[in-house]
Amino acid sequence: MADALPASPLALPLPELPPVAGVRFATAEAGIRYRGRTDVLLVEFAPGTAVAGVFTRNKCPGAPVSWCRNILPGGVARGLLVNAGNANVFNGVAGEAAVRASADAAGRVLGCPPEQIFLASTGVIGAPMPGGKIVAVMDDLASRLAPDGWEAASRAIMTTDTFPKAATRTARIGGTAVRISGFAKGSGMIAPDMATMLAFIVTDAAVPASVLQTMLRQGIEPSFNCITVDSDTSTSDTVLLFATGQADNSPVTDARGLAGFRRALGEVLHDLALMVVRDGEGANKLMEIAVTGAVSARSARRIGLAIANSPLVKTAVAGEDANWGRIVMAVGKAGEPAERDRLAVAVGGVWMARDGKIVDGYDETPVAAHMRGREIRITVDLGLGRGRAIVWGCDLTHGYIDINGSYRS
Amino acid sequence: MADALPASPLALPLPELPPVAGVRFATAEAGIRYRGRTDVLLVEFAPGTAVAGVFTRNKCPGAPVSWCRNILPGGVARGLLVNAGNANVFNGVAGEAAVRASADAAGRVLGCPPEQIFLASTGVIGAPMPGGKIVAVMDDLASRLAPDGWEAASRAIMTTDTFPKAATRTARIGGTAVRISGFAKGSGMIAPDMATMLAFIVTDAAVPASVLQTMLRQGIEPSFNCITVDSDTSTSDTVLLFATGQADNSPVTDARGLAGFRRALGEVLHDLALMVVRDGEGANKLMEIAVTGAVSARSARRIGLAIANSPLVKTAVAGEDANWGRIVMAVGKAGEPAERDRLAVAVGGVWMARDGKIVDGYDETPVAAHMRGREIRITVDLGLGRGRAIVWGCDLTHGYIDINGSYRS
Repeated sequence: MADALPASPLALPLPELPPVAGVRFATAEAGIRYRGRTDVLLVEFAPGTAVAGVFTRNKCPGAPVSWCRNILPGGVARGLLVNAGNANVFNGVAGEAAVRASADAAGRVLGCPPEQIFLASTGVIGAPMPGGKIVAVMDDLASRLAPDGWEAASRAIMTTDTFPKAATRTARIGGTAVRISGFAKGSGMIAPDMATMLAFIVTDAAVPASVLQTMLRQGIEPSFNCITVDSDTSTSDTVLLFATGQADNSPVTDARGLAGFRRALGEVLHDLALMVVRDGEGANKLMEIAVTGAVSARSARRIGLAIANSPLVKTAVAGEDANWGRIVMAVGKAGEPAERDRLAVAVGGVWMARDGKIVDGYDETPVAAHMRGREIRITVDLGLGRGRAIVWGCDLTHGYIDINGSYRS
Repeated sequence: MADALPASPLALPLPELPPVAGVRFATAEAGIRYRGRTDVLLVEFAPGTAVAGVFTRNKCPGAPVSWCRNILPGGVARGLLVNAGNANVFNGVAGEAAVRASADAAGRVLGCPPEQIFLASTGVIGAPMPGGKIVAVMDDLASRLAPDGWEAASRAIMTTDTFPKAATRTARIGGTAVRISGFAKGSGMIAPDMATMLAFIVTDAAVPASVLQTMLRQGIEPSFNCITVDSDTSTSDTVLLFATGQADNSPVTDARGLAGFRRALGEVLHDLALMVVRDGEGANKLMEIAVTGAVSARSARRIGLAIANSPLVKTAVAGEDANWGRIVMAVGKAGEPAERDRLAVAVGGVWMARDGKIVDGYDETPVAAHMRGREIRITVDLGLGRGRAIVWGCDLTHGYIDINGSYRS
């Protein structure tokens, strides 16, 4: 296992996170893989908590993802149980048994059916999941549940993330103030396994599960579905949104009156997603790629992700090289409509190329200065339509190779 | 510009390449970008030479690619003009003018219409193309055309390839022996620009252009379309096949009687494609990924390329880590039908995982030994159908970052 990594140069401080009514936390050291740190998190939700979720599209998902998918239609959550160190992926029937045992144990201590316990695991793939170690700490966890615990929760789910990730906002539903807080883990590594992205958001608002689900699905599109670290899709990606209803806001039956809530949720998702990129493996620079003038928003996003995932663009950014030729290449390889002679490319707000060729009298000086910063802005205009998107990624550095190329030990 | 790189540890020696009847070469130092080396190649073909070609699918292709696409339907080639150092991409009207001037000049010295001159350029993108420098050496090139010149030709088109790439085979058409020889350049780099893959194959066989085109299109599927270095598609990728007809074989009107020719052509394409991978930027290890049991050959290839392009698989191979969890992840992210519980993964011929979980009593020792070698064999069986494919890639190393992250200087 690798030593702890130094904090990402793109790290952000943890914000102040007040308690959310109807939510209690406890963490424990179960010793699943790590030693001397917490690795299990139990979150209790008040009765009546509604839940929404979105999961990895990887065709080989972990057992916890399959479990959550199965119970999500119930729309009710009483607990969330997360462990770090073992992803419980590719473990066959034994993996499913570990999931069942964990949900049973958590349901027992929280007094609910196991089908109201949501599960997520992150860590090594294909290693047998020591579900017994989680079950063994369950009574202890239940005895220590407390409403303050955001930082501890954020830390317990880290693998080799270099900083804990959380965000919070308030909104109003009718005349009632509600809070939305979330935490996430990102693209740290556990030698030798892949990154897993997990995010959990809770609110004290009373919002039915069906409305939550719609808002979450829409909310992840411009946030978690617009980020990339290395183009590899984890088998465990999970975003869950829980609404305890303790804020006693006026009844909600559909999305009407939820504009403020939707906006605040979107901001929390955005903040968490960007923290995941900021902690991308080996990342030294954050890339924001704005694509305009595409034939559709979907096309714009695909082009943006082609740029953000291009190893040649990512290494150029790492090398502080405003290499618009590679950006043009990435646009062209995206498989989306593009016309060379309408294409324009800007870096740091300076247009370098327009109408398919370099701008007359182009001065690289301000662009080179921008490239030396931490946050690199790339803009591409296709000149074809009104589709636009913004995606975020990070550079590709020696740190990525170091983290992911080190042999298991 | 970077200094010359040491030869790839995966380099192969240049084979003996006898002359091909109807083909003459000349190279020159035009000083387009490099100093002290050849950078322009002129190839003359005998009258009556048929031609076939396939080109990049990048939507922002270079001007020479557009030129070749336009003249290819004529089916006749008298010349091939290639330069290294400037890709003539994203140069607008000026780029097209440079193409026209080069084709005019070559047509003049070879005594043919410019529409019988095929062009390819590789190097920096977006830099104005100094077409005049190519025109200036044309008379000199024409005066030195000679049938021996494979190695010189292979070297003149290198950018920062670390070794010249060529392959040759013989076949019989009817009772007549014919030869097929080709050369290629691959994924070297010119700081700061992307790799370009060019390959040119010539034969003395008499085969009509339409038949050649079909055979080339089929031939690149299991060769050039099954390799990847870094998932980035060049704006200049070009494969051209010329048939001089000097072998005087019996007349060919369709693919009947060409089984041997097709096989030999396939072998030349295969050899060249693998040399490109062997010279992948920073490559230390060649990956051969065999996918079986997919729902179709197309699906198998996509899954293979998802594995070959996965940064996490590539860094694991670089780190000599038989990380089948990452292989499973890459299968799952490919977007193709896959069932976790039918999946099997082998490395170096040793099955590590079957039926969605690790093989009982799996012994990593022989696999670890295999991973320390230069050529890494990965096998994935989907257990779903009869679709199969083999793809090739290379590992992702610090060398890749060094090559592509270095700032222009």
